Amino acid sequence: MSKDIDRIEKELERVVFSKEEILSHASLQLLQSGGKRIRPVFVLLGGKFGNYNIDQIKNVAVALELIHMASLVHDDVIDDANMRRGKPTINAKWGNRFAMYTGDYLFAQALQSITNIENPKAHQVLAQTILEVCKGEIEQIRDKYDFEQNLRCYLRRIKRKTALLIAVSCELGAIAAGAKEEVQRSLYWYGYYVGMSFQIIDDILDFVATEEQLGKPAGGDLLQGNVTLPVLFAMQEATLRDKITKVTEQTSTEEMSELIEGIKMSGAIEEAFEVSERYLQKALHSIKPLPRGQAKLALRSVAKYIGKRKF
Amino acid sequence: MSKDIDRIEKELERVVFSKEEILSHASLQLLQSGGKRIRPVFVLLGGKFGNYNIDQIKNVAVALELIHMASLVHDDVIDDANMRRGKPTINAKWGNRFAMYTGDYLFAQALQSITNIENPKAHQVLAQTILEVCKGEIEQIRDKYDFEQNLRCYLRRIKRKTALLIAVSCELGAIAAGAKEEVQRSLYWYGYYVGMSFQIIDDILDFVATEEQLGKPAGGDLLQGNVTLPVLFAMQEATLRDKITKVTEQTSTEEMSELIEGIKMSGAIEEAFEVSERYLQKALHSIKPLPRGQAKLALRSVAKYIGKRKF
Repeated sequence: MSKDIDRIEKELERVVFSKEEILSHASLQLLQSGGKRIRPVFVLLGGKFGNYNIDQIKNVAVALELIHMASLVHDDVIDDANMRRGKPTINAKWGNRFAMYTGDYLFAQALQSITNIENPKAHQVLAQTILEVCKGEIEQIRDKYDFEQNLRCYLRRIKRKTALLIAVSCELGAIAAGAKEEVQRSLYWYGYYVGMSFQIIDDILDFVATEEQLGKPAGGDLLQGNVTLPVLFAMQEATLRDKITKVTEQTSTEEMSELIEGIKMSGAIEEAFEVSERYLQKALHSIKPLPRGQAKLALRSVAKYIGKRKF
Repeated sequence: MSKDIDRIEKELERVVFSKEEILSHASLQLLQSGGKRIRPVFVLLGGKFGNYNIDQIKNVAVALELIHMASLVHDDVIDDANMRRGKPTINAKWGNRFAMYTGDYLFAQALQSITNIENPKAHQVLAQTILEVCKGEIEQIRDKYDFEQNLRCYLRRIKRKTALLIAVSCELGAIAAGAKEEVQRSLYWYGYYVGMSFQIIDDILDFVATEEQLGKPAGGDLLQGNVTLPVLFAMQEATLRDKITKVTEQTSTEEMSELIEGIKMSGAIEEAFEVSERYLQKALHSIKPLPRGQAKLALRSVAKYIGKRKF
């Protein structure tokens, strides 16, 4: 499948190219800053359960990666983030306004790519997803530094932020390949559970990975007021809760380091990891009804890889 | 047709409603701050040349108005605008980040609305248009305070900023109603020319209308560095050119008032108006091949109304 992944990589480069120099530059930087292209991989794997045709399915893969990229650019504006994967963000380099439009542009390119799929269901699923992702982003603004929020609130937010787009990657791959309805459903749920697990691991890594691995200082989520699963668990301890609820943008690096150590020592990381594991188990369970073969084995490996990744 | 317009109004209100209170509030304010709903009107008129079915066509009308609204919200961020139609803008009231997401949300709602149309051509046309509109917005950032730009540059920008969306409103109305291909084409060109004329008049009004009519101070475009048609014509006079090229965001209100008077006296307004008139003539010419009837008469009146509007 790596040949097809390369093809999507080239397609992405072609699509984001623009005569507008800064725009091309910004989009290409974003593209080259890596990312694991997990959405395209899931689209292709989903497609393997139907009539796999790379010329059709590449349009879905490209669209989903572009939507993901667009949401990253807009997220960085929201978070006032300076760095992404060790490089200055688009907003840091060219300003919020330009970042806003780069996001819009990538988003528009995504739409154009998906118009190559004729099945109206594909458009409906995508539009609904984008709407939910948007709602999630607005929730994320609303919930910042809200230390009264509960687990349900967090789970709903990461569903919209991450899990939905992965669920839909799997589903749309199957839709574009004309796979059966039950297969589409199973793949959706697989992607949903994998996505939940993926985001929880991401939120854990923000505490336990090194600055080098993250490309930005550890604990950045908490500093920005994003209340993630390890934070929710850590707050069950009164002393930690006290310190955490006092975090603002102004909290010093020293205070943050100390707090991060406290969170790591509290067992919150392990608890969060257990939740992630439970989602992975559900993901593996979801694909049981799918026909055996290479694609199913690959889905299983991907789920396991996500559970183990260290950065 | 006013019954159908009312219906679209209600549909718009329903669609922008969200459980997220601020979001609902912001979108409703935007909706209620008026606007002439010219895009929905053009969609409905376009639909009259085919199999007019309001239940189908309303989805196109709603989508186009929402895309227009979304682009206004993002434009206000770009322009750092404080007022729109006499009310504080979303960015002024709730900040740039929230405005960015309100735009994204409206945009997503637009996409969802259009998925109710099954014809793939509708999706292709819309995606292509959104892409062009985005490019136009990036050009608008790039071209700010660039007093070396020429007429072609201006015309390309207003095409992307305004004319395309109006052209596509007419065309998509016809597409959704299953009108003939030639009819779709004629309507597209009618909308394109009307849109060009409409934007030129808008750019003229920014100089000649009162602050009360505009809901913001006159000459605001120039102050923000938007080089419009009256400015381009005024710059043909050396003394005016000299003053205009010195405009920055810091230019005082007194200097601006003097400059606006100078531009008004130079004949630039009249020249710009003539260009608008020529576009209107082309619009009227474009609909000649269309079948006679109420809808055609309405298209003619709308074009004439646009040519005469005073604010």
